[in-house]
Amino acid sequence: MNANYNNINVIGFDADDTLWVNETYFRAAEQEFAKLLTQFETPNKIDQELYKMEIKNLPLYGYGVKGFILSMVEMALKLSNNTVSSSTIEKILDIGKTMINKSVELLDGVEDALKQLSKKYKLIVATKGDLLDQERKLEKSGLLKYFHHIEVLSDKKAINYKKLLSHLDIKPEVFLMVGNSLKSDILPLVEIGSKAIHIPFHTTWQHETVSENSVSTSDYLTLKTIKDISRYL
Amino acid sequence: MNANYNNINVIGFDADDTLWVNETYFRAAEQEFAKLLTQFETPNKIDQELYKMEIKNLPLYGYGVKGFILSMVEMALKLSNNTVSSSTIEKILDIGKTMINKSVELLDGVEDALKQLSKKYKLIVATKGDLLDQERKLEKSGLLKYFHHIEVLSDKKAINYKKLLSHLDIKPEVFLMVGNSLKSDILPLVEIGSKAIHIPFHTTWQHETVSENSVSTSDYLTLKTIKDISRYL
Repeated sequence: MNANYNNINVIGFDADDTLWVNETYFRAAEQEFAKLLTQFETPNKIDQELYKMEIKNLPLYGYGVKGFILSMVEMALKLSNNTVSSSTIEKILDIGKTMINKSVELLDGVEDALKQLSKKYKLIVATKGDLLDQERKLEKSGLLKYFHHIEVLSDKKAINYKKLLSHLDIKPEVFLMVGNSLKSDILPLVEIGSKAIHIPFHTTWQHETVSENSVSTSDYLTLKTIKDISRYL
Repeated sequence: MNANYNNINVIGFDADDTLWVNETYFRAAEQEFAKLLTQFETPNKIDQELYKMEIKNLPLYGYGVKGFILSMVEMALKLSNNTVSSSTIEKILDIGKTMINKSVELLDGVEDALKQLSKKYKLIVATKGDLLDQERKLEKSGLLKYFHHIEVLSDKKAINYKKLLSHLDIKPEVFLMVGNSLKSDILPLVEIGSKAIHIPFHTTWQHETVSENSVSTSDYLTLKTIKDISRYL
């Protein structure tokens, strides 16, 4: 296995749910949202409809917490047939602000792993979401010092990674990406000839899931924790 | 005057109100917004209050259209003392979506100027706002082919420009920035030892204005139109 990684000299890390907890807060926000609208629909149905609304709005708002808040507001109007109260809308805005102000909770072993890897490799962050929100989380995380470059991408398809690597003058074959999303952090990298290590998080947003048989597991490595990366490098 | 620009080999352009119309659409949106809330306050007061709300939310939401929509929603709730109707909130979301979907209207002479300058200089875009929104506008503008690099910044202070130039391996003294905002496109560049050309747009967002006596006009050049840049280079 070691042989595979001999060429690597730059390691990219996804941020949300790879370096710190994120999806958990979205799930909690969705639950709060469903509770606010309990008079109009069942929590399950609200969840499904909110997801559809987010996907519908994705081309417009992109990834990140601001688009999520706007979709919750729109969903509340729609589900209630425009009868929802102003104070409920206010509470939805507050859910969003609370998410933005949340402290950053690092995943287990992250800081040690970065400290160690940064001695031998150039480390970068490649994340999607709201620009300011991601920059702020990195600032709060205390991890900025380990990274040579931070890139917030509007999407994480093969073409986006290709542009990023070419811009940073990194050859795909010397690049290893580490992340929790098969769809966004792993498959596009395999496609462009980079290496990838998948570290699943216990919660995955529906939009980020892919059918398991669409990928061959020999193309990338799956690990339980970021602590195990150094064993393979 | 020419001597000043002999060292320049990279030119940075602001995007909104430098390459294309933007502030005009925000002003129109604010007018529509005021019309929706006419039963609660005078248009003038609504304008002032919305501006205060945007500034209050800036540290949270950052620059760009999504934060603007969220601030309009919050303002509607506040101004109406939580009595605003759901259909008004719906109309506010629509104002935002219309802004996002607006076609891009290039300012006079932009394409010719870029075509000509790109033959001799490396051109980049340095803009702030929502990541996806700015990328989409560049795509729609048809101008992407003239630029070597696009950077969407969460803010445009001296430190942000310093980081950008260092990341792109550009020395401050060979960099010229062109933009409509003294505060964001000109003064920070003068501060870091780059050159700057100010091309005012007829409308400036209050937040971007600076008192004229805080700057010495010998530090940068002011031109009426982007067409005039080549005369000085």
